[in-house]
Amino acid sequence: MISVAIMGHGVVGSGVAEILATHKQKLFAAIGEEIDIKYILDLREFPDSPFADRFTKDFNVIADDIEVRVVVETMGGLHPAYEFVKECLSRGKSVVTSNKELVAAYGAELLALASEQNANFLFEASVGGGIPIIRPINQCLVANNVSEIAGILNGTTNFILTKMIHEGMGFEEALKLAQELGYAERNPEADVEGHDACRKICILASLAFGKHIYPDAVHTEGITKITAADVEYAEAWGGVIKLIGSVKKIDKDTIDIVVAPMFVPNESQLANIDDVFNGIMVRGDCTGDVVFYGKGAGKLPTASAVVADIIDSIKHFKSRKYLSWADSDNSSVLPYEDSVRAMYVRGVTDDKAAAYDKARAVFGEIHELSKENAPDSEIAFITEPLALSDFNEKLGQLGDIEAKSVIRIGDL
Amino acid sequence: MISVAIMGHGVVGSGVAEILATHKQKLFAAIGEEIDIKYILDLREFPDSPFADRFTKDFNVIADDIEVRVVVETMGGLHPAYEFVKECLSRGKSVVTSNKELVAAYGAELLALASEQNANFLFEASVGGGIPIIRPINQCLVANNVSEIAGILNGTTNFILTKMIHEGMGFEEALKLAQELGYAERNPEADVEGHDACRKICILASLAFGKHIYPDAVHTEGITKITAADVEYAEAWGGVIKLIGSVKKIDKDTIDIVVAPMFVPNESQLANIDDVFNGIMVRGDCTGDVVFYGKGAGKLPTASAVVADIIDSIKHFKSRKYLSWADSDNSSVLPYEDSVRAMYVRGVTDDKAAAYDKARAVFGEIHELSKENAPDSEIAFITEPLALSDFNEKLGQLGDIEAKSVIRIGDL
Repeated sequence: MISVAIMGHGVVGSGVAEILATHKQKLFAAIGEEIDIKYILDLREFPDSPFADRFTKDFNVIADDIEVRVVVETMGGLHPAYEFVKECLSRGKSVVTSNKELVAAYGAELLALASEQNANFLFEASVGGGIPIIRPINQCLVANNVSEIAGILNGTTNFILTKMIHEGMGFEEALKLAQELGYAERNPEADVEGHDACRKICILASLAFGKHIYPDAVHTEGITKITAADVEYAEAWGGVIKLIGSVKKIDKDTIDIVVAPMFVPNESQLANIDDVFNGIMVRGDCTGDVVFYGKGAGKLPTASAVVADIIDSIKHFKSRKYLSWADSDNSSVLPYEDSVRAMYVRGVTDDKAAAYDKARAVFGEIHELSKENAPDSEIAFITEPLALSDFNEKLGQLGDIEAKSVIRIGDL
Repeated sequence: MISVAIMGHGVVGSGVAEILATHKQKLFAAIGEEIDIKYILDLREFPDSPFADRFTKDFNVIADDIEVRVVVETMGGLHPAYEFVKECLSRGKSVVTSNKELVAAYGAELLALASEQNANFLFEASVGGGIPIIRPINQCLVANNVSEIAGILNGTTNFILTKMIHEGMGFEEALKLAQELGYAERNPEADVEGHDACRKICILASLAFGKHIYPDAVHTEGITKITAADVEYAEAWGGVIKLIGSVKKIDKDTIDIVVAPMFVPNESQLANIDDVFNGIMVRGDCTGDVVFYGKGAGKLPTASAVVADIIDSIKHFKSRKYLSWADSDNSSVLPYEDSVRAMYVRGVTDDKAAAYDKARAVFGEIHELSKENAPDSEIAFITEPLALSDFNEKLGQLGDIEAKSVIRIGDL
């Protein structure tokens, strides 16, 4: 019998306990041993839980119990999750987490500590919920040099954008609906400002390129400024607007990493990923594009990924999983102003013909966009690819044209 | 240094040697040891190969060399691949293969032998080429009860259908193009008759449900009878025709498994998978639908999956991968006449109105389809879901209506 402890009995943590109970037989078949939930750490009371007798409020009970060899961290947040995880790893316990904030902030340190202690630190559930992505990148694509990863990594914003695209809602209306349905928090900032997606692309980038990329080094834009007009121009262009986390290898020492709304062409496999679903494209030199699709969040999808990691860590008590990356000072991150992309611009002007001429004079070749019911004063166009600093400088030269929206074109 | 041998220097085998050479550094980083190709088995001569000095025509050289701990089988076909793989496993060597025919025919036996010998028998490349699918099902989705797997598993037929759908080609014309581009063999039977897809769905079914399903137990239909008219009716219905390998769990002891062209609704993630790409949907009780997409064949994608398995087997010299399924007598396979699906029928008649009345009298509720430029004598409709035996009996009762096409409706 293998004893595990679960720290945090919220949505994911309670899902982990539920799956360990309901899938007992299947899990036994996978490892040939029974898994026993010895402790559940939570400050709240759960008298009606079927696991009521396992609850503790004292972390040290778990840390001190040498029988507990795998600890699940589903508390969320950085503190005390970080301290608890560190303590568990220091004592040679393997740790499985769904906490993307923790992995994005302390992944390199915790992986190094796990390695020192010959324990495992696994976090399949931290990106893409129930979608297998960490293990496939680490194991299945090991014989590829990954050149790019791009994904729809946040279900809440994808739900909002889907409503804006397919039902013509405005941002505020779609956000309100997402909140009513429980897809968005009352304070939706972490989702709609892109911070959640940023943590996830940092984890994927660290894994694929072997150096820890910290979220504060990543230029991050949310979707709050996207308007119905932008959605319609994207459609006229032949695509949709998606919040994309993207990382590209520029050269041996440099990656271009960003989280921002982007125009995604309809032909892209990411264009059809709607509602709360996530999709992640991994471009390898041997495989070409591989795309993973599924529910990126939710109790049971995420919990099932946690349980898969529990099983894997149990199978690897004797031989550590080779999952690690080096710490770094973020010096491999290309300054975001140097990132080269084609750009969409929507602007307001008194004289459309003159404005397009001016835009052409400033940007060179541009692709004009038109849509039905556009105000007479509105222009919209797409530039050729150029560095963002160059783009911003040119935008300032447009004179009387007031830029209302500026969105990257994704080459996906 | 780890010594490996590669049996078969065809497309995939030569790709494996190439990746082991070109990705040496990355692979070294993954396992901390160098991989040496000690032998390449092939009856042909390759004097200009950079590996010219490693070639042998004698299998026993490999079998007898105790330094060789991992053997790659990329010969294809059943014999002598089966005998060679068996001999290698018997001697405790791990075997990695891309040979779907071998795994579909002898998987249970070879997995059992590997287990006995504490060796690994891995075959990620046998399904989906470079798309991670075997390992995700086996490891990442271990905490799910899989209820269904459905996929576009054959790139050649998907290319042909794509040309029929998007460019209005007929089957013969599209096949000829596929042959010219090297996507289809001169003798295309294994692809267009569905045998290749059948082997792959058998492997996935065996893995997901734990019992070996042999290809001869699976009802298999190809795409040779699909016409441009059927493609147009599918479009009128709101979907596309795809060759689908499908397996569903009916109850504890029964699975419904089939390979056949199906109507796939445009909303399905499988509908947008075009050209030579593959896509595989795995439906789990916790994750919901997860979809994997990428190049299902080709030298480097397939070879990179083989190399990932080499790395995995080297990492698991000491602890075997838990990958296995039981042998079976196929008794869990639902007789295909008992399989329940809605069906599309295209027929020819002298009197359309009377024919639809007749169809309604026989099938109950039907959904009539119409398309532009349909001949006056043509009817097309979709039935409610019913058992195939029931459907066939009713089809015989249609009297003067001559059925030209009958295609399953996929609930994907």
